[in-house]
Amino acid sequence: MSDPDALVRSSDPEHPANHICTLCAKFYSLGWVTGTGGGTSIRHGDKIYIAPSGVQKELMRPTDMFVMDFESREYLRRPAAHKPSACTPLFYAAFKRGAGCCIHTHSQWAVLVTLLVEREFGSSAPFEIEQIEQIKGIPKGRDKVGNLGYFNRLRIPIIENTAHEEDLTDSLEKAMEAYPDSYAVLVRRHGIYVWGDNVHKAKTQCESIDYILQLAVEMKKLGLPWTTK
Amino acid sequence: MSDPDALVRSSDPEHPANHICTLCAKFYSLGWVTGTGGGTSIRHGDKIYIAPSGVQKELMRPTDMFVMDFESREYLRRPAAHKPSACTPLFYAAFKRGAGCCIHTHSQWAVLVTLLVEREFGSSAPFEIEQIEQIKGIPKGRDKVGNLGYFNRLRIPIIENTAHEEDLTDSLEKAMEAYPDSYAVLVRRHGIYVWGDNVHKAKTQCESIDYILQLAVEMKKLGLPWTTK
Amino acid sequence: MSDPDALVRSSDPEHPANHICTLCAKFYSLGWVTGTGGGTSIRHGDKIYIAPSGVQKELMRPTDMFVMDFESREYLRRPAAHKPSACTPLFYAAFKRGAGCCIHTHSQWAVLVTLLVEREFGSSAPFEIEQIEQIKGIPKGRDKVGNLGYFNRLRIPIIENTAHEEDLTDSLEKAMEAYPDSYAVLVRRHGIYVWGDNVHKAKTQCESIDYILQLAVEMKKLGLPWTTK
Amino acid sequence: MSDPDALVRSSDPEHPANHICTLCAKFYSLGWVTGTGGGTSIRHGDKIYIAPSGVQKELMRPTDMFVMDFESREYLRRPAAHKPSACTPLFYAAFKRGAGCCIHTHSQWAVLVTLLVEREFGSSAPFEIEQIEQIKGIPKGRDKVGNLGYFNRLRIPIIENTAHEEDLTDSLEKAMEAYPDSYAVLVRRHGIYVWGDNVHKAKTQCESIDYILQLAVEMKKLGLPWTTK
Repeated sequence: MSDPDALVRSSDPEHPANHICTLCAKFYSLGWVTGTGGGTSIRHGDKIYIAPSGVQKELMRPTDMFVMDFESREYLRRPAAHKPSACTPLFYAAFKRGAGCCIHTHSQWAVLVTLLVEREFGSSAPFEIEQIEQIKGIPKGRDKVGNLGYFNRLRIPIIENTAHEEDLTDSLEKAMEAYPDSYAVLVRRHGIYVWGDNVHKAKTQCESIDYILQLAVEMKKLGLPWTTK
Repeated sequence: MSDPDALVRSSDPEHPANHICTLCAKFYSLGWVTGTGGGTSIRHGDKIYIAPSGVQKELMRPTDMFVMDFESREYLRRPAAHKPSACTPLFYAAFKRGAGCCIHTHSQWAVLVTLLVEREFGSSAPFEIEQIEQIKGIPKGRDKVGNLGYFNRLRIPIIENTAHEEDLTDSLEKAMEAYPDSYAVLVRRHGIYVWGDNVHKAKTQCESIDYILQLAVEMKKLGLPWTTK
Repeated sequence: MSDPDALVRSSDPEHPANHICTLCAKFYSLGWVTGTGGGTSIRHGDKIYIAPSGVQKELMRPTDMFVMDFESREYLRRPAAHKPSACTPLFYAAFKRGAGCCIHTHSQWAVLVTLLVEREFGSSAPFEIEQIEQIKGIPKGRDKVGNLGYFNRLRIPIIENTAHEEDLTDSLEKAMEAYPDSYAVLVRRHGIYVWGDNVHKAKTQCESIDYILQLAVEMKKLGLPWTTK
Repeated sequence: MSDPDALVRSSDPEHPANHICTLCAKFYSLGWVTGTGGGTSIRHGDKIYIAPSGVQKELMRPTDMFVMDFESREYLRRPAAHKPSACTPLFYAAFKRGAGCCIHTHSQWAVLVTLLVEREFGSSAPFEIEQIEQIKGIPKGRDKVGNLGYFNRLRIPIIENTAHEEDLTDSLEKAMEAYPDSYAVLVRRHGIYVWGDNVHKAKTQCESIDYILQLAVEMKKLGLPWTTK
């Protein structure tokens, strides 16, 4: 580890250190990472690349990245100017289950849906919706082939928020076990974690779910139900 | 067919292989093709250019394009990395009727309008609106001269969604026959197909219709009726 | 007039032929000129520059511009590929009264406000709002010094739409006479015309009014009144 | 002061004269400084840089900046083409209390929240919300360590608007004294002032608060309460 900066130096736009920067700039324009909120992490072989805490997500540079060894969970690169992301153990929970990329947003649609579900179905209910074409953007589940169909019901578990983000890890992992086919967990009054086998899939799934959450909020404004029965 | 890549290689920004890329990047920013949803196809003489399935629409390159022969419906170019779009037979239905470009969006306004129409007017009713200036952005109908007037009623048929996109073809074609003057078909809980004589007209009509659908949703939120009687 | 193209050829970004293009690209991103709707015109000394009809407003080039002589109302430049804007007599009505720039948008907020005013106050009522800071972005009126104050009521007349845009001219001019201090006229179910002494003022006023119209719609959704009594 | 222009000439993008320009262009795209509204000011050692009044905020250049001496409050640079910002004494009130940057927006969410608070809690009530993750983007208060926690209640005072912006100074300073831990003051029917120790913090806090204000408006549309009791 003579030169940890070599880990974030690449001319390849799809190198994780570069890719996290372009993704987060896009996510900023989608309203997902306002005010340094949210974050993104990519697993690249035996390394995990993580955006730092408290940084303006649309202005990040590759040299801002933390790099962690997957096995030892030790930092291979730790920029002195930054604090590691409190989301790190949450991202790690997804990587342990085979994810290649994990995205955390503070999307307002996610926050509003968690409140609407609580009011209508109680605090232990997941978000459920069906018969929306965009559901097809989400895979059936780990070790299953293909994506959900139009007539499948999408279920996303909701966990309660905690005072400290890292304290979400236990309930996030429990939700992952209780809903083994889900690629996302909503956090009440906070946002959402979405992961995928690789960057392309994580981004596609996060966009598809955010689309569905926005649609769900608009449906409630218009008095339209989320499920047909 | 010695070099199928020559079909997508051009320095002309209006060459279909280039044009589909710039159009889809714009459509992404309009929220029409989130999460690889939606698609666009252009007929160019005896060839049809089609964006592939499952690709991030704002990041496409000309080399991602499928090219089909109009007469034989055989692929002249088929990128190994991609799957052909399930919309292909739907786009083809429009091209058979003289269209030069067909756009498919997952616009949330389209989805919401199909639900509002179903609730208020039943599942066989079309979307109807009148006395909105933007209606003038839509032509009167095939083989007719000029665009709709301000006092004309815009009618867009709505078909039910199916489990597989290609299975929409029959009902889309039936709707095209039942509403021969329409340049668009809404798909319940899914989105919209809009076509036009050429790229310019298809884009203009798709934008005008999406504007009207958004306005229609906002009108319902405010308790304003879509038709004057 | 040996070379009418010289009228639109300039390296100055504030030359009217260039300026209309950059303004309309911005207006497209604000949702004001969707689907070739809306338009913009600048008076430059004894000449009037006008964006053509039916053109994608975000893609215009200086060579697309019409140029009219202010006194004779004859075209000095008339691109063969385009039709003159049906808004031309409406823009001219503003120029006759001293305007240097006139902007016409199909803003959805404008359309919704015209419908809300009609329902609540009748079809001859203007839009009225007061005690909103942004009102200060609008001048007191022609030949008056300074802008409206926070405690002044903003009044914008509303005229009924017609089948053909040029037929709005009479009622637009009547509204200009009835509300001599107004820099804008709303058109029911259509949009708004806003003008100013120069490009800077017209743009500022159009933005300020559009902000107020959007706010007014959101206020109605929340049951908040537009005037304090 | 042989060359006041030297004060605004720098190739460093984070020099205040450059930084205000890029910030305001971003704020324009967020809808915060529409129609020349709003403003931004940075304290840089013993100097204060201030965006001028009445200028299109997304088009500003470093040469448009006013520069004031912090101690004497005299202008070191005063562009002849512009009027000084009426917000100057308001920005100064924040700088006197240790701020390094102050942002003033006309965000519609801010305006709507001031009206909703007045209707529900009366004209002397602050805006209050709790248990929203994004609250963590806001520091605990001057001379205190760290940011607010998820279970802390965010309180932002609201002052009444006045005919002239500079007349807000007294009530702004009173609100600053009454809420010594607040980094923001809402102005009824007008907008918000947000400040921070430096540019990074002011921007992050302004984005976090605007996110919360937007969420608060959407919560009201859906009948969701801002506080849990």
